Amino acid sequence: MSISDNGGTRLDPWYGSYAARAHEMRASEIRALFAVASRPEVVSLAGGMPYIGGLPLEEIGEMMKRLVVEQGEVALQYGSGQGDEGLRERILDVMALEGISAHPDDVVVTTGSQQALDLVTNIFIDPGDVIVAEAPSYVGALGVFRAREATVVHAPMDADGLIPSELDATLTRLKGEGRRVKFLYTVPNFHNPAGVTLSLERRPQVLEICRRHGVLVLEDNPYGLLGFDREPMPALRSMDEEGVIYLGSFSKTFAPGFRVGWAVAPHAVREKLVLASEAAILSPSNASQLAIRSYLDHHDWQGQIKSFREQYRERRDATISALQEHIPEATWNVPDGGFYVWVKLPEGLDAKSMLPRAITARVAYVAGSAFYIDGSGTDHMRLSFCYPTPDRIREGVRRLATVVDAELETVRIFGTSGTGGTDTVDFPAPDLN
Amino acid sequence: MSISDNGGTRLDPWYGSYAARAHEMRASEIRALFAVASRPEVVSLAGGMPYIGGLPLEEIGEMMKRLVVEQGEVALQYGSGQGDEGLRERILDVMALEGISAHPDDVVVTTGSQQALDLVTNIFIDPGDVIVAEAPSYVGALGVFRAREATVVHAPMDADGLIPSELDATLTRLKGEGRRVKFLYTVPNFHNPAGVTLSLERRPQVLEICRRHGVLVLEDNPYGLLGFDREPMPALRSMDEEGVIYLGSFSKTFAPGFRVGWAVAPHAVREKLVLASEAAILSPSNASQLAIRSYLDHHDWQGQIKSFREQYRERRDATISALQEHIPEATWNVPDGGFYVWVKLPEGLDAKSMLPRAITARVAYVAGSAFYIDGSGTDHMRLSFCYPTPDRIREGVRRLATVVDAELETVRIFGTSGTGGTDTVDFPAPDLN
Repeated sequence: MSISDNGGTRLDPWYGSYAARAHEMRASEIRALFAVASRPEVVSLAGGMPYIGGLPLEEIGEMMKRLVVEQGEVALQYGSGQGDEGLRERILDVMALEGISAHPDDVVVTTGSQQALDLVTNIFIDPGDVIVAEAPSYVGALGVFRAREATVVHAPMDADGLIPSELDATLTRLKGEGRRVKFLYTVPNFHNPAGVTLSLERRPQVLEICRRHGVLVLEDNPYGLLGFDREPMPALRSMDEEGVIYLGSFSKTFAPGFRVGWAVAPHAVREKLVLASEAAILSPSNASQLAIRSYLDHHDWQGQIKSFREQYRERRDATISALQEHIPEATWNVPDGGFYVWVKLPEGLDAKSMLPRAITARVAYVAGSAFYIDGSGTDHMRLSFCYPTPDRIREGVRRLATVVDAELETVRIFGTSGTGGTDTVDFPAPDLN
Repeated sequence: MSISDNGGTRLDPWYGSYAARAHEMRASEIRALFAVASRPEVVSLAGGMPYIGGLPLEEIGEMMKRLVVEQGEVALQYGSGQGDEGLRERILDVMALEGISAHPDDVVVTTGSQQALDLVTNIFIDPGDVIVAEAPSYVGALGVFRAREATVVHAPMDADGLIPSELDATLTRLKGEGRRVKFLYTVPNFHNPAGVTLSLERRPQVLEICRRHGVLVLEDNPYGLLGFDREPMPALRSMDEEGVIYLGSFSKTFAPGFRVGWAVAPHAVREKLVLASEAAILSPSNASQLAIRSYLDHHDWQGQIKSFREQYRERRDATISALQEHIPEATWNVPDGGFYVWVKLPEGLDAKSMLPRAITARVAYVAGSAFYIDGSGTDHMRLSFCYPTPDRIREGVRRLATVVDAELETVRIFGTSGTGGTDTVDFPAPDLN
């Protein structure tokens, strides 16, 4: 068989050789826009990049030096597939702040919590299996679920997070249709993108419903310690050890550049996660793991989180007051933690078709459609307030307002705002996390 | 559906929820042995851990400090899914030593080359597709191929590497059987575990055969720059840009603790690899990537490789002379680079069943069966000479000789050496890479 017999094209001689799933992998048009959006003159309200400038870089640099000089033969070597035991012990201290009691053996260290998402999906999902996820859901999770050929069914939220009665009805309906639901994917705290938090009252209700339907809960919790006004809520995992896989991350409470996250899972599941991780990457980076461990050992990490909370609260406030001043026609939630404001545009506007015009006006956001598996949600946009300074945020929202005003004018004259978006769902891009 | 209706057991309530592939993921009995083998009193000739003690840790520590202090806002932040552009440019300099000419756009940085293996397998393999791999093959590759539900067919090697006529016959036979061969997996230089190198004469022959059969070549080359006696051979990728995906790694030429490897692929394939990598990990670690880039920029990395080559040659010599002295009944190749000696045991001995007795005698190796998809190869063992000092290597081989002698005595008396091994193929463990 020659290459051309093999279904090759002049553009891609291996086109005929891909796995079925790979044909679904396409770079979206939004990706090209983001290359433009990352230029310094554009105010990016799009990415979920934390404010690294708030870290004590001099101290961290000194720490990295000591780490390599004193423990280099471990830090620069291969490590265990499950992750460094000392770090796994420190991770217990972090999770204790949300009421989780676990053993270091229950923890699997991963290359960011994105890898944990991939591993869980890997071990549970056969093509066509159903994952129930909030509407909307984190774009990077939808990307993994799609790459692993899952069917995603959304369940609705309100200001208190996932609605238990609706979740129950969704699971009952799917069961009636003979569908195999493998897990519920939920971001209970300071949701990405919706900004809401699952209320304390609803937490045991969600767990009871999932238990009753035999559905595992995948609790993704990168933002739980970043509340602005109160102590963290107890994690779902703190209420149910056997029914929940918990995912944590140092990307938002310390720094994403080390790519260190983790999963906590029931014993037998944890064992499979380790085997799947070894197939995927052999072992997580010892250099990164020991850096995080050293940071937790020798720095006031809780003080740093407190400082981040204050910085992000100030940025949240800047975002909300700028919205009130410049785009009063829109509606939004006021998140009490995390990175995101979820904005509903005025009637008739389409966030996806408006995006190129926004970037021309030197401001970027993520259109709501990225957070729905079916491309709905174009009436929403996600504004991230984590990265730009308050002044830049105000300038960004002001620019955004000029675009919204022009769109509204177009709608008033022509009855539609433009070309309309496509239904493509993006693969997760690092800028979208 | 309750959890117990769901097929759960008291040991694993989620047993009924796993994906089909996850049921194949089991920790082997060898894993438990390796926990014992990592004790300091055991001489490990098992792991492929490089000799990190040979690195200038003080200088690298100082470099890490400067990196965080001067470029912390980049090093500690999320990066691009494809990897840092500056590092991708430096990677071209590394590959130029093996005659590869490429563009930074062709390179995808991965979390060790293990992740590159996983990504390539992800985008090309539907369950049941065939991968042709050398007999024997790297255990970590077999682990990925199995986790991705590929069928592996081995093709034989001799002292000059893969045998072209046998490869051609294998591909022809598979075609006749209507099997879909997606790629050839090959480690052309200082093979793991066989220690052999594909001769210069055979390289274009292998490429021509694969091209004729429409089969992609996956060239895995972690050891290419670690030859003891001569300059590197030209890479397969240097002879064929469209037909080869090349995998490289800094784990053996610098340090594995950063987990940085890379893939070079034809344009359209490279694009899918990036999308698959973003789904799996969002982006590789900026801290690790910038550390490698800084190392390549500011250190005599080629001098360091030369120093590694000398150290590993000395260890190879220690291994071979100890084998000659202590286990003359066995046969082996004399590798002219890399990390491994592939030893054929005397008639009647089984490396797998002998392993527990070897560990009791405080020496560890990897049984040959780990490197075959069907568990054959129990008459071989892999001895790694990369990690222990020459004195420790001699002591390890001496201990091994006592076990071999006792086994031979048993065979002489009873006609068999023991219990026999099982057919389980291991998942890759970090200690086995």
